[in-house]
Amino acid sequence: MKGGVLSLDSPLSRKLSVFVALSDTDLETLASLYRRRRRFRSGHEMVHEGQKNTSAFILAKGWACSYKMLPDGARQIVDFQVPGDILGLRSILFRTADHSIEAITGIEVSEVLAPDIMNAFANAPRLATAVLWAASRDEAMVVEHLVDLGRRSAEVRMAHFLLELGERLKLVGVGDAKGFNCPLTQYHLADALGLSAVHVNRVLRHLREEGLVTFRKGRVVFDDFARLTELAGFEPGYLDQDGPRLR
Amino acid sequence: MKGGVLSLDSPLSRKLSVFVALSDTDLETLASLYRRRRRFRSGHEMVHEGQKNTSAFILAKGWACSYKMLPDGARQIVDFQVPGDILGLRSILFRTADHSIEAITGIEVSEVLAPDIMNAFANAPRLATAVLWAASRDEAMVVEHLVDLGRRSAEVRMAHFLLELGERLKLVGVGDAKGFNCPLTQYHLADALGLSAVHVNRVLRHLREEGLVTFRKGRVVFDDFARLTELAGFEPGYLDQDGPRLR
Repeated sequence: MKGGVLSLDSPLSRKLSVFVALSDTDLETLASLYRRRRRFRSGHEMVHEGQKNTSAFILAKGWACSYKMLPDGARQIVDFQVPGDILGLRSILFRTADHSIEAITGIEVSEVLAPDIMNAFANAPRLATAVLWAASRDEAMVVEHLVDLGRRSAEVRMAHFLLELGERLKLVGVGDAKGFNCPLTQYHLADALGLSAVHVNRVLRHLREEGLVTFRKGRVVFDDFARLTELAGFEPGYLDQDGPRLR
Repeated sequence: MKGGVLSLDSPLSRKLSVFVALSDTDLETLASLYRRRRRFRSGHEMVHEGQKNTSAFILAKGWACSYKMLPDGARQIVDFQVPGDILGLRSILFRTADHSIEAITGIEVSEVLAPDIMNAFANAPRLATAVLWAASRDEAMVVEHLVDLGRRSAEVRMAHFLLELGERLKLVGVGDAKGFNCPLTQYHLADALGLSAVHVNRVLRHLREEGLVTFRKGRVVFDDFARLTELAGFEPGYLDQDGPRLR
């Protein structure tokens, strides 16, 4: 199998190509990271907070979430991961994982160990910059979620969150301007947005009745993308996905 | 001036050494990033949200903060930066900065441009891994602030926040188990922790009266480090600063 062909097809290569035009060496090095393919069932815990020597996983298919548990049993979801995202990139360089990761749907991943990443950086320094870009983008999303919790009303944070997911999925070819398939439950949304499940349902009903967005039967439909964007004050610049910057 | 000596003395080299034993090449490459020294006054805006082609800055002396402004004029402080931190590392690879950065005190920095980072990675791939580690650590702190806002009481989040600052400053040699000098006002704390300035004062008074921590006249003193740590549920593993992992 040719590395270049394989890796151009993957959601991660597609995502990184938005930042940098990848050379043949970059693509081959990236392809070498896809070797250890694994499948996990919905609900499988990939990484447990406090675990040592964790792996990272490049997500090819399905959805996952990263979260922290509080001493009182409450859960704060930090982010959701979709195809093209690297699960546990942050923890792979740490002695112990600082958060847990769980498969939301059945998923297909490639397992990546810390030395794989370091070898890849030595072979293809541009890839190092691209991975730093991807990590920066992940951080920018966590920052938006921080602003959600700190400063946005329940309705605005829901609108902002659904628009962000839509942009991310569009980038890897599994969503468009009309909407996207979404396996999240009201409990996932509640734990991510700092709301109760009842409140989540009320907010979603209100956004639907206003003709802005409908989330039903596993699908999010943007009924009025422009007005939803305005309500959310959504500026997708922090996702930095408007075509390759480096050529 | 010898690069190696210069860079071993810097707070950033000291910080990165916690992750990786830096080789002579790594140190020389790092030293080359310190060339463009700049000083800025307290209150100077280093980076403005939406700005294009921003620089990053390695902070040698002083404190800064990164923040986002909301359409209604509210401010959410994302994090504070102390010596050894890289300001604007996230935005340097983006087309437009996703947040603003301001000097809190007078500061001394080295200005770093995106190509400097890429050249450094090409010369010293281990440095790329170390910078990815530093970025991961920054993200881990933002995640903790997300948990602060989503799931921790005002008192617990203040305790957690002061302990985190203490650990970070200890790492770069400007704090110890007793406490640290701190230029933050109640307004900074309020905008970081999602509280009002009045609430910040009430929480600080209560923590002081309980004999846990005193923040007065620009200094934070840990009156009872063990009990404060217990109250906060503070587990410093996410700062990953217990001695070099890679040799």
